[in-house]
Amino acid sequence: MITGKNHIGNQLSAEGSKTFKTFDPISNIENSSIHYEASQKEINEAVSLASDAFKEFRTISGQRKAAFLHAIADEILALDDELIQTYCSETGLPEGRAKGERGRTVFQLRSFADLVAEGSWVDATIDTSITDRTPAPKPDLRKINIPLGPVVVFGASNFPLAYSTAGGDTAAALAAGCPVIVKSHPMHAGTGELVASAIIKAAEKTNMPNGVFSNLNSSGIEVGVQLVEHPAVKAVGFTGSIRGGRALLDLAAKREEPIPVFAEMGSVNPVVILPKALTEDGNNWAKTYAGSITLGTGQFCTNPGLILGIKSKEFSQFIAQVSDAILKIKPSVMLHPNIAGAYETNKQKAISQSDVVVTASFKDNTQTNFASQMIATVEGKEFLENSTLHQEVFGPFSMVVQCEDENQLEEIILQLEGQLTGTVISDENEVANYPKVIAALQNRVGRIIFNGVPTGVEVCPSMVHGGPYPSSTDSRFTAVGIHSIKRWVRPFSYQDWPNNLLPDELKNENPLGISRHEDGVYKS
Amino acid sequence: MITGKNHIGNQLSAEGSKTFKTFDPISNIENSSIHYEASQKEINEAVSLASDAFKEFRTISGQRKAAFLHAIADEILALDDELIQTYCSETGLPEGRAKGERGRTVFQLRSFADLVAEGSWVDATIDTSITDRTPAPKPDLRKINIPLGPVVVFGASNFPLAYSTAGGDTAAALAAGCPVIVKSHPMHAGTGELVASAIIKAAEKTNMPNGVFSNLNSSGIEVGVQLVEHPAVKAVGFTGSIRGGRALLDLAAKREEPIPVFAEMGSVNPVVILPKALTEDGNNWAKTYAGSITLGTGQFCTNPGLILGIKSKEFSQFIAQVSDAILKIKPSVMLHPNIAGAYETNKQKAISQSDVVVTASFKDNTQTNFASQMIATVEGKEFLENSTLHQEVFGPFSMVVQCEDENQLEEIILQLEGQLTGTVISDENEVANYPKVIAALQNRVGRIIFNGVPTGVEVCPSMVHGGPYPSSTDSRFTAVGIHSIKRWVRPFSYQDWPNNLLPDELKNENPLGISRHEDGVYKS
Repeated sequence: MITGKNHIGNQLSAEGSKTFKTFDPISNIENSSIHYEASQKEINEAVSLASDAFKEFRTISGQRKAAFLHAIADEILALDDELIQTYCSETGLPEGRAKGERGRTVFQLRSFADLVAEGSWVDATIDTSITDRTPAPKPDLRKINIPLGPVVVFGASNFPLAYSTAGGDTAAALAAGCPVIVKSHPMHAGTGELVASAIIKAAEKTNMPNGVFSNLNSSGIEVGVQLVEHPAVKAVGFTGSIRGGRALLDLAAKREEPIPVFAEMGSVNPVVILPKALTEDGNNWAKTYAGSITLGTGQFCTNPGLILGIKSKEFSQFIAQVSDAILKIKPSVMLHPNIAGAYETNKQKAISQSDVVVTASFKDNTQTNFASQMIATVEGKEFLENSTLHQEVFGPFSMVVQCEDENQLEEIILQLEGQLTGTVISDENEVANYPKVIAALQNRVGRIIFNGVPTGVEVCPSMVHGGPYPSSTDSRFTAVGIHSIKRWVRPFSYQDWPNNLLPDELKNENPLGISRHEDGVYKS
Repeated sequence: MITGKNHIGNQLSAEGSKTFKTFDPISNIENSSIHYEASQKEINEAVSLASDAFKEFRTISGQRKAAFLHAIADEILALDDELIQTYCSETGLPEGRAKGERGRTVFQLRSFADLVAEGSWVDATIDTSITDRTPAPKPDLRKINIPLGPVVVFGASNFPLAYSTAGGDTAAALAAGCPVIVKSHPMHAGTGELVASAIIKAAEKTNMPNGVFSNLNSSGIEVGVQLVEHPAVKAVGFTGSIRGGRALLDLAAKREEPIPVFAEMGSVNPVVILPKALTEDGNNWAKTYAGSITLGTGQFCTNPGLILGIKSKEFSQFIAQVSDAILKIKPSVMLHPNIAGAYETNKQKAISQSDVVVTASFKDNTQTNFASQMIATVEGKEFLENSTLHQEVFGPFSMVVQCEDENQLEEIILQLEGQLTGTVISDENEVANYPKVIAALQNRVGRIIFNGVPTGVEVCPSMVHGGPYPSSTDSRFTAVGIHSIKRWVRPFSYQDWPNNLLPDELKNENPLGISRHEDGVYKS
């Protein structure tokens, strides 16, 4: 049941006077539940509980953390239809998507559970002493990853489950041993509360310390600002806009103690279509891309917003084909009137730039909050000269750039901002002839894709979901996959520490049987 | 031969009009060489060359990078006596220390050479495709660490070799595949130029691209500011004061594209002496600590500046013993008149705080630039209430805090800023009875030491030289050991990329024979 209250550790609380409601974009009306914004007192209480909980939680065994994470997954599944219906009513996204995203969320939680139950993720490294070394004895040193402390997580509007309350940031932080305080996304506060209640139930069932998790409501920025500025908060995770992520990064940088912010932000996800693919399979790629551009109403971080090709008869034909194909797809609803409004504004801004030509614009769209998909095209020269055209239009929109030649293509890629992904459509022989284009693209992105679409972010250890700024605030980390845990931990050394007082992961006898580096040799 | 010029890639250059000299603190006179500050044009040229060099350098094989790093080590050794004499004349440090630090520097370079020659450091992770998976096929994903781009390194005043021009930051960055631009430390500009010339010789001998290394002189802050603000610079390494490191962090955070700054900064390195050690071995520990406090004239990042104990007859006796022992040690020279001056100022500031009692002050010091070692003591209550007493006094000074009881000891540790190290003097049975004190200490430091001294930073994979802010700007990294390479790399994913176009580290046939994670299994 949705109460509209905040979870301050294990307690429901509604001390604030400000309230808000979520919105059903399909019916175009507010949902009925009333959500209470967290008060300053509630914020401080949540952080204080998290700090206290950290003292115990950071020493809890991998087995117990795994039980907690599995229990969260179980409790989320137990929410069953109430969760799915709330999700749909707060986003306009279809039931299939809700269930798919729930599956992804549960998979992530269980992946982290398995990771910490097994235990080798701590990167245990042991260098034993050499007492008779000259001129000085070598001490015994042992290193392990330990949690940073309380982490604040800001959920994403476009992924109410997989990148929000119990999403990747939260799962990774809890797995690391960091208590989590979620600043719930106001567009899906009901979904957020339900998931939060599942986490709290799981925490209670598995005897986790009170404060290991809190969920705070807010429709504005104040709660988030106070959380990021709180001295007891030690790291921040965020998924959303460049403006939002940069604001948090700036706040964190100005603290007396600056803290790490991992924000996964905007991206136009450039797609480079090389000539051969156009000759051989242009029409199929056009259809595939029309699908990728409109998938989830274009509301994916990895939506292909920029298509780059070299001018030719075939490329012109491809533009006509992708334009044709996209008009055959039925428009779908956006998450919220604000997002639909921003899409229209940003789209109009892009196509009002000089020499931009609209090649496809869905006109029969009469339903409120639904997005008209669009393809526009521009010459390489104009694109190079106008940075407005490099900016993301969040929604089912793609800009096709017609480059003069390979050199201009390379120049355009070199000038792009950092991106989550870059895609190349080609064949193995042809792509080998474009080393400069590929090198330029690699230097601008976190993930490079061959003959595919950027939408669809596989959850696996080899995934990088991140990239050079502004696609993320720190390209040295990923937001997806088990290695995303590295955002929330730091290495820690014990020197000459008594064996019986070391954590199990570092003891001589290796009681957990984990893989370790011992005196330069990997032992598994 | 010292020319006083900047190394702009492979060219010596002295276009600037501003010059400065280094200083011999023992003779108390300026050294003769004239050093030319880098001009804005030279700065831009160095960065531009580094950007160009990166295009080639980032794809160079591990074997070739190893040859380059070994050649740097060889060329540094070939500088022989000229390097040692210059080092001594610019620091006042003895020849033995110069040679020891050279050995450490060479060892670091060769360690990184071995690391990249072997190749497994890239953390290759492979998840192969499952084409018949439902509802969607699983793509082939392969992840590897790639270099960030040009790195600016600021050397330390107190380690002209091991933490400067060809020190740990530079060695790690070159090993990663990042070109390096060193902002040479003005106090040892001659030493810096000699080492830079060795790096350039090595680069030429091993056919590295011009611009893979540059060395810029400056006695002020302007050159450093311009380097950190340059859009083509992608990361910053720094060793020095909190003020300096924080200023660079703030500059980097304000860039249009914020970049990572790893600064290893100040630390008071708290030492907790528990009762049993005092009863059983107090006098020996007093002598050991008198030695550690004065080692290198107290000019180590890990110098023990704070000793914490619980009031007792034995602790009072220890204070008397360490005070007595420190007065028996002959004072030594500081690196520079400015550092000697700052030591005096900071020492006086500390001991002028209310209720601080000086228990040892070396008075017979008549030689200019030599440091009078000092021990002072204060009650736990005063220490808790006065944050001035928590600040580092860079030099042979230690503050002894007499705590009322275990609770006050824990409270003091909880309130300390982040530290590089924390030390516990005790025995295995006794320390197990102080879990809260140990937990508090662990949460404030990067390395915890049992029955030893914090001075002496072993170069090995299990070392953490870093810690919570302000001991470093990002506790998730270390400045020492092979894992310090992680500061300068980012993970990168290839999705469905043709096998023959993958880097060797990720090819199916594993031509380099490196250890990899393949479908969740570690294969070595």
